[in-house]
Amino acid sequence: MERNILLTIQYDGTNFSGWQRQPNARTVQGEIEAVLTKICAIPMQINGTSRTDAGVHALGQCASFKGEFGIPTDRIQRAANNMLAATVGTPRQCADVRIIKVEEMPDDFHARFDCKGKTYRYIVKHGCEADVFQRNYAYQLKEKLDVEAMREGTKHIVGTHDFACFQAAGGTPRETTVRTIFDLQILEQSEDTFWIEVTGDGFLYNMVRIIVGTLVEIGQGKRTAASVVETIESTDRRNAGHTAPAEGLYLKEIYYDAEQMKKGR
Amino acid sequence: MERNILLTIQYDGTNFSGWQRQPNARTVQGEIEAVLTKICAIPMQINGTSRTDAGVHALGQCASFKGEFGIPTDRIQRAANNMLAATVGTPRQCADVRIIKVEEMPDDFHARFDCKGKTYRYIVKHGCEADVFQRNYAYQLKEKLDVEAMREGTKHIVGTHDFACFQAAGGTPRETTVRTIFDLQILEQSEDTFWIEVTGDGFLYNMVRIIVGTLVEIGQGKRTAASVVETIESTDRRNAGHTAPAEGLYLKEIYYDAEQMKKGR
Repeated sequence: MERNILLTIQYDGTNFSGWQRQPNARTVQGEIEAVLTKICAIPMQINGTSRTDAGVHALGQCASFKGEFGIPTDRIQRAANNMLAATVGTPRQCADVRIIKVEEMPDDFHARFDCKGKTYRYIVKHGCEADVFQRNYAYQLKEKLDVEAMREGTKHIVGTHDFACFQAAGGTPRETTVRTIFDLQILEQSEDTFWIEVTGDGFLYNMVRIIVGTLVEIGQGKRTAASVVETIESTDRRNAGHTAPAEGLYLKEIYYDAEQMKKGR
Repeated sequence: MERNILLTIQYDGTNFSGWQRQPNARTVQGEIEAVLTKICAIPMQINGTSRTDAGVHALGQCASFKGEFGIPTDRIQRAANNMLAATVGTPRQCADVRIIKVEEMPDDFHARFDCKGKTYRYIVKHGCEADVFQRNYAYQLKEKLDVEAMREGTKHIVGTHDFACFQAAGGTPRETTVRTIFDLQILEQSEDTFWIEVTGDGFLYNMVRIIVGTLVEIGQGKRTAASVVETIESTDRRNAGHTAPAEGLYLKEIYYDAEQMKKGR
């Protein structure tokens, strides 16, 4: 009988050329498909929810795959993680990608098409010297940012808008650039570090990184919090801020239940 | 006039084959000598205080070099860090090695011979699933350790002892294996993470990692805290615990003033 399996996956994006399978490049999808193909003993392809770029991390990426295979569902996680750790080829204790949950889903479930929304986290470190240990894991800015002004700016982004101004060229063409941001928060972790967490029903290409770049420019005093309104209305990418680096971005959570997403926020 | 310069250096050891210069391998010493040779426009060799192994990190490694060169001392840090970042060749915001301090020292100062002691930090994560983001930065153990028993074990290590039991084969031959540990503490950071911080006048090859392996085995209930006394008395490496992995180890601080070291602890 064909089974439909949903994986929840954590990865450090530093040493991957992004999520999507590519010839001659190490990608998250490629690594996971290779181990599943061995474990299930049939060629296996997975559908990821989000095609994260090179350097972008995931705390809870999702991917589903279907097939008839012998291994019991509850053994997939351990078998895959052991095999992933072995392929890294260094004496590390775990690979840079790990499956953290395996679930059996109804036949008609699809990890991407059934996604109701996502939360991304973006980590910013400011007002201090660059830290070698954070170079792949945060956006590090020497100057101190005005976090209150940035927080003011976030208010104009929450809601349903045409977010064409926050879309980079080069992504999959979309029918519409209207999206709903349910929640956008700046969570201070310490004197010099904050997280920007954003939840929405969908995100355009590089949308989170451009939102972060725009907010950072507000924090630098290069643009005002109120100017975000005009930027969005213009639907023109050239009016928004720079694209913040991939290293600071984490795909935090995928929601398949819209109510849960709204409650969780 | 010849100057004598002391560098304080921070590095993420993950992508280095250790400190010491080697042909055909990327080492911290090799990278720093290459940029100093360019900046000072004469071939430059540095004397590091500690030859950290592959994968071992540093928060405050020291190294000194002498020579006659044009660049003012206060410009060395910035010039070197910019050049180091450029050699990494990725669009990262800083390299995995950074000079954090540059000081002019008296003519007879030597970074290694004048060292009065060092502090190492070792990071352990326990009682939780492996975290992909910590794989290069901590020793991750799935089982929960008995931290109180480990703390009891540390008491038998502090002091002046023949620490031959904690010395791995393969290091530089030493005249004596007697060392003084001034301080050895277990500092709990969170539910699942603690730091082991150890300060001593000198350390034998792999000494900190073998001490940590021995303490971890106490925490696992494989040996008692009191047994450390016999282990040390035996002066036999085979009686001590395993060598904890390099990834968890950080060279935290170097002391050139013995009084300051004792006060600081």
